[in-house]
Amino acid sequence: MSSPAIARLDASKGSSIPNNSNPGDATATANVTTSTNPADNVAAHAVNIASQEAKGAPSASATQAATVIEGAKQLAAYTAVDHHILPHHKVIGIGSGSTVPYVVDRIVQQGKEVNSGRVFIPTGFQSKELIVKAGLILGDVDQYPNIDVTVDGADEVDSDLNCIKGGGACHLREKVLAEAAETWVVVADYRKNSKVLGTTYKQGVPIEVAPFAYAKLLQNVHRLGSEKAVLRMAKAKAGPVVTDNGNFVIDAPFDESKYKDPHSLLTNLKMLTGVVEVGLFCRMAKAAYFGNQDGSVTIKRDNGEEATLREEEIKNYGGATST
Amino acid sequence: MSSPAIARLDASKGSSIPNNSNPGDATATANVTTSTNPADNVAAHAVNIASQEAKGAPSASATQAATVIEGAKQLAAYTAVDHHILPHHKVIGIGSGSTVPYVVDRIVQQGKEVNSGRVFIPTGFQSKELIVKAGLILGDVDQYPNIDVTVDGADEVDSDLNCIKGGGACHLREKVLAEAAETWVVVADYRKNSKVLGTTYKQGVPIEVAPFAYAKLLQNVHRLGSEKAVLRMAKAKAGPVVTDNGNFVIDAPFDESKYKDPHSLLTNLKMLTGVVEVGLFCRMAKAAYFGNQDGSVTIKRDNGEEATLREEEIKNYGGATST
Amino acid sequence: MSSPAIARLDASKGSSIPNNSNPGDATATANVTTSTNPADNVAAHAVNIASQEAKGAPSASATQAATVIEGAKQLAAYTAVDHHILPHHKVIGIGSGSTVPYVVDRIVQQGKEVNSGRVFIPTGFQSKELIVKAGLILGDVDQYPNIDVTVDGADEVDSDLNCIKGGGACHLREKVLAEAAETWVVVADYRKNSKVLGTTYKQGVPIEVAPFAYAKLLQNVHRLGSEKAVLRMAKAKAGPVVTDNGNFVIDAPFDESKYKDPHSLLTNLKMLTGVVEVGLFCRMAKAAYFGNQDGSVTIKRDNGEEATLREEEIKNYGGATST
Amino acid sequence: MSSPAIARLDASKGSSIPNNSNPGDATATANVTTSTNPADNVAAHAVNIASQEAKGAPSASATQAATVIEGAKQLAAYTAVDHHILPHHKVIGIGSGSTVPYVVDRIVQQGKEVNSGRVFIPTGFQSKELIVKAGLILGDVDQYPNIDVTVDGADEVDSDLNCIKGGGACHLREKVLAEAAETWVVVADYRKNSKVLGTTYKQGVPIEVAPFAYAKLLQNVHRLGSEKAVLRMAKAKAGPVVTDNGNFVIDAPFDESKYKDPHSLLTNLKMLTGVVEVGLFCRMAKAAYFGNQDGSVTIKRDNGEEATLREEEIKNYGGATST
Repeated sequence: MSSPAIARLDASKGSSIPNNSNPGDATATANVTTSTNPADNVAAHAVNIASQEAKGAPSASATQAATVIEGAKQLAAYTAVDHHILPHHKVIGIGSGSTVPYVVDRIVQQGKEVNSGRVFIPTGFQSKELIVKAGLILGDVDQYPNIDVTVDGADEVDSDLNCIKGGGACHLREKVLAEAAETWVVVADYRKNSKVLGTTYKQGVPIEVAPFAYAKLLQNVHRLGSEKAVLRMAKAKAGPVVTDNGNFVIDAPFDESKYKDPHSLLTNLKMLTGVVEVGLFCRMAKAAYFGNQDGSVTIKRDNGEEATLREEEIKNYGGATST
Repeated sequence: MSSPAIARLDASKGSSIPNNSNPGDATATANVTTSTNPADNVAAHAVNIASQEAKGAPSASATQAATVIEGAKQLAAYTAVDHHILPHHKVIGIGSGSTVPYVVDRIVQQGKEVNSGRVFIPTGFQSKELIVKAGLILGDVDQYPNIDVTVDGADEVDSDLNCIKGGGACHLREKVLAEAAETWVVVADYRKNSKVLGTTYKQGVPIEVAPFAYAKLLQNVHRLGSEKAVLRMAKAKAGPVVTDNGNFVIDAPFDESKYKDPHSLLTNLKMLTGVVEVGLFCRMAKAAYFGNQDGSVTIKRDNGEEATLREEEIKNYGGATST
Repeated sequence: MSSPAIARLDASKGSSIPNNSNPGDATATANVTTSTNPADNVAAHAVNIASQEAKGAPSASATQAATVIEGAKQLAAYTAVDHHILPHHKVIGIGSGSTVPYVVDRIVQQGKEVNSGRVFIPTGFQSKELIVKAGLILGDVDQYPNIDVTVDGADEVDSDLNCIKGGGACHLREKVLAEAAETWVVVADYRKNSKVLGTTYKQGVPIEVAPFAYAKLLQNVHRLGSEKAVLRMAKAKAGPVVTDNGNFVIDAPFDESKYKDPHSLLTNLKMLTGVVEVGLFCRMAKAAYFGNQDGSVTIKRDNGEEATLREEEIKNYGGATST
Repeated sequence: MSSPAIARLDASKGSSIPNNSNPGDATATANVTTSTNPADNVAAHAVNIASQEAKGAPSASATQAATVIEGAKQLAAYTAVDHHILPHHKVIGIGSGSTVPYVVDRIVQQGKEVNSGRVFIPTGFQSKELIVKAGLILGDVDQYPNIDVTVDGADEVDSDLNCIKGGGACHLREKVLAEAAETWVVVADYRKNSKVLGTTYKQGVPIEVAPFAYAKLLQNVHRLGSEKAVLRMAKAKAGPVVTDNGNFVIDAPFDESKYKDPHSLLTNLKMLTGVVEVGLFCRMAKAAYFGNQDGSVTIKRDNGEEATLREEEIKNYGGATST
């Protein structure tokens, strides 16, 4: 006899929940391709672009840029998974952002056997959907406060692997899963790779705040030097964005001088009364993987090492996986 | 000696909170003009449009449409206030939407003396800001569960004054303030004036739901006949819209047959477990005021009366106010 | 190589989360005994009581009553599991209340093999803890909106199997899991077994309400005939109880005349603006199992059948399980 | 013509909201006596106690202690108001706790004229009720982020005026109103007056935490040296206490060595990911007023001064008010 509940679940696949790309990110999440070799896909992207250009498609260059970035994201994600999510890792955190679908894709490619003994902890709604749709086992950080590896995106990463996160307003949950992890790895495309924070992500540090305290906090954040700090307003509802934790978000841009010492900035902001969490992740990452436009991947590590690998080198760099 | 707190408050006027127009509404909230005669402003709009056209401004017709709609909104709002917010009314509910700034504008024009004895109850963040910026006294529905008059916008109004509301995801609070009011009045522009609901507002009935229950509710709403019902996704954060009450929103479009009996639809939806509130306001309005493109105002009343008034007639129709 | 995260999880077992019995229930949750024969435990309770009485323990009779009730709860829980949670059931809802620990206990006794293919969906914090501590796999109603069987407690059950629930303020989640289930079964002790609701549970119908609307709702609930309805105040914090969904609770006692038609009462209450969910579960249960003081179990079924079984008969009544 | 809404409000006075004393405080809030001279009331208490003792009331000594403590609270509250809430103060914060009703009482005694130009900002549900019932004008910290004076209770105060707060789980809002105030004053009875924190309040530092992060935070708080830290469980609902901000509370007791440097402890705790606010208020108070059992008041000031005043001296110490 089979479980009627499971049967009904199967019947309802292809749910009515729309996909949701990361706000603040210009490129939509493309359909995840299924080749197991990411370099193949980069090549395929190039072919697609060439053929589009030949047809004289009007928005060809915009499309081309978007396609290349997708290939770059995929390559970074696949390489990060190959290097860091090893067979003996059983509790895995899955973050948010437009690169993360490729992370899940690569994990699925590791096979049913290894994944059937794993639990996956999402940082939010998007990653929960990804985990469920991929048929992986969903877990909860309450139940698994210790995580082997968490892979997440970022809005910007500096040369010391400090990150700005929170464009999607999920940075509280993301930081909990980053801290709970033995290893925290960032995946992104080349546009997020900076020397100093604030270079490409201009919207400011996302600060999650208790609604009751927001007006007072705006004053206090202004005093800390961010005169342009504003309450983030919603677009699909009236009034401010409300986070999944029921809080508001202040976006606070700072001068380069402040961004050069992100840890002090984090401390000064977090100590303000009413601040729930600050979207600065300081020296938490073990490594960051950036997909470049030419199909290579730049890897920055917490020991200061930086390397850019071509496709053919990727498998042989630091990869304890497939062997 | 003066209160230092008040002094600091005055100094900080012109806050960093951006204005927020009603999502789902194509026209942004224009600056509120200050003439006390709404018909003057409609005339002024016409002049502006004429001069713009003469200059051959490229987007002249788009600008023209926007300007006319603003004039129409203002006229409807002013007339509604003149007819319904009378000097002896002391507790007044202020709703959301792009027409409501004109309501507050007209109330302010009634003078400091009458307003100093009044309390204003907002339906959400936007109306709270409007009340505070206008220097009116803010109140709370906990404290004033009985309201004299509430004026609010709507996403669509049918010929029996049934409304769809919730494009801004504030319909729970709006319905509480509508019910708490002795008189509930709707103000909108001509595009919201329909025979049957669902004619112009195609996004569906906004249903506020407990997050825990949303997946089950999507199934149940589909069974009630809205196969296209979806969870409303946010744009300025990852994942679904979270309301000011910490809930999610399902947008559920229905067939005309269902919209013809909105009260049954409301009952069927509200009785579903996990539904917090439905954006159908059935036979609650005393009257609805629609500003038309030609400078006239259409008034629909709960006794079935409908009248379209030209500017010069407006003051003399049902207006107990200024005399 | 073993997962460090799992190793750390094992090391931290015996967490600092205190056990939490159901508020409004006089008897604390006793330690779950481990005999697989519930009747044995009832006998054991009797022996304990006898020996305590012989020693002249001062609070012997209070202890005796508590012990007998625990035995009764266990017997009801075990019988309900034996009758309704069958090997082919894969998605199982676990409710709240002082009888439910025995439900989980009995499920665990069905063996690792059958349980390793099952997912368990909790109605709240307590049942989540129970599931995790028992080593069962935790699921989520988002992911499994169709459940095979849910077993839950109740504050009172009438002769048509209508229930009052919500003493623990979890009735929204409980109702979602009751509705999502193909079969919903109630387990309780004899004190919850009434002809008409309101006979033994005097605190009133628990109504979960949006905080914004509570003052208006108190007025409206009074008008529906519950003059003594009050906002439920917290004891371990200042102000009102806040539910796990961020709402308030109104406890509304009604006259017997209202309780005789609980479905009408439910409809009238749920339709009030601001009501999130009502703690009346009307004709949802397939069966209710009540443990009696003499070691027997009374079973009420949705077809009107009622039977009281002695220990030796229990295995043979309706039990498709063990065969 | 009078406002129907106001008329209905007056008619509904004497609402169904029960009074709520501060959890964790053994003495219930007594009825506020109305003599304008607090010393009279202390004397009256003494008389009451004497007469009760003469009648041989069985619980006389318990009643006596409770009555004396009430007198002490009242005296401290009245003196604090006399010293710090001056006629030119227009924005006043009102805190929580069993001493605060006397604060409101004394403010009312300053007269309708002065209070009609004031706005009162509550820290939570209890103080909101107090303000509304006293007929004072309610405000909002969003609207008035700068406060002239806030008066609040505390769970314990050390010799440097550092406080433990959060027994009522309102410490986030309380800290916002403390910081927003030019002057923050504490009122309490003698039992809250300690040399070092943790001497009389043994339950530990109340830490408001994001629900998502609680399990990880318990681990982290244990590592900071509070092995006995626990999640605070509710009594009038199942599961943990949920704060008015939708969060959980961890109660974390520490050793005396940690309590001797409360500012470091505060910093270490607040910096933990998921901590919303810590119930340590370090060097924020301008003064603390403790009512003693003998009818005197001990005043500790932020300049290290400490004085104990007898009734007849009270009016003449630092009192800029009534003269």
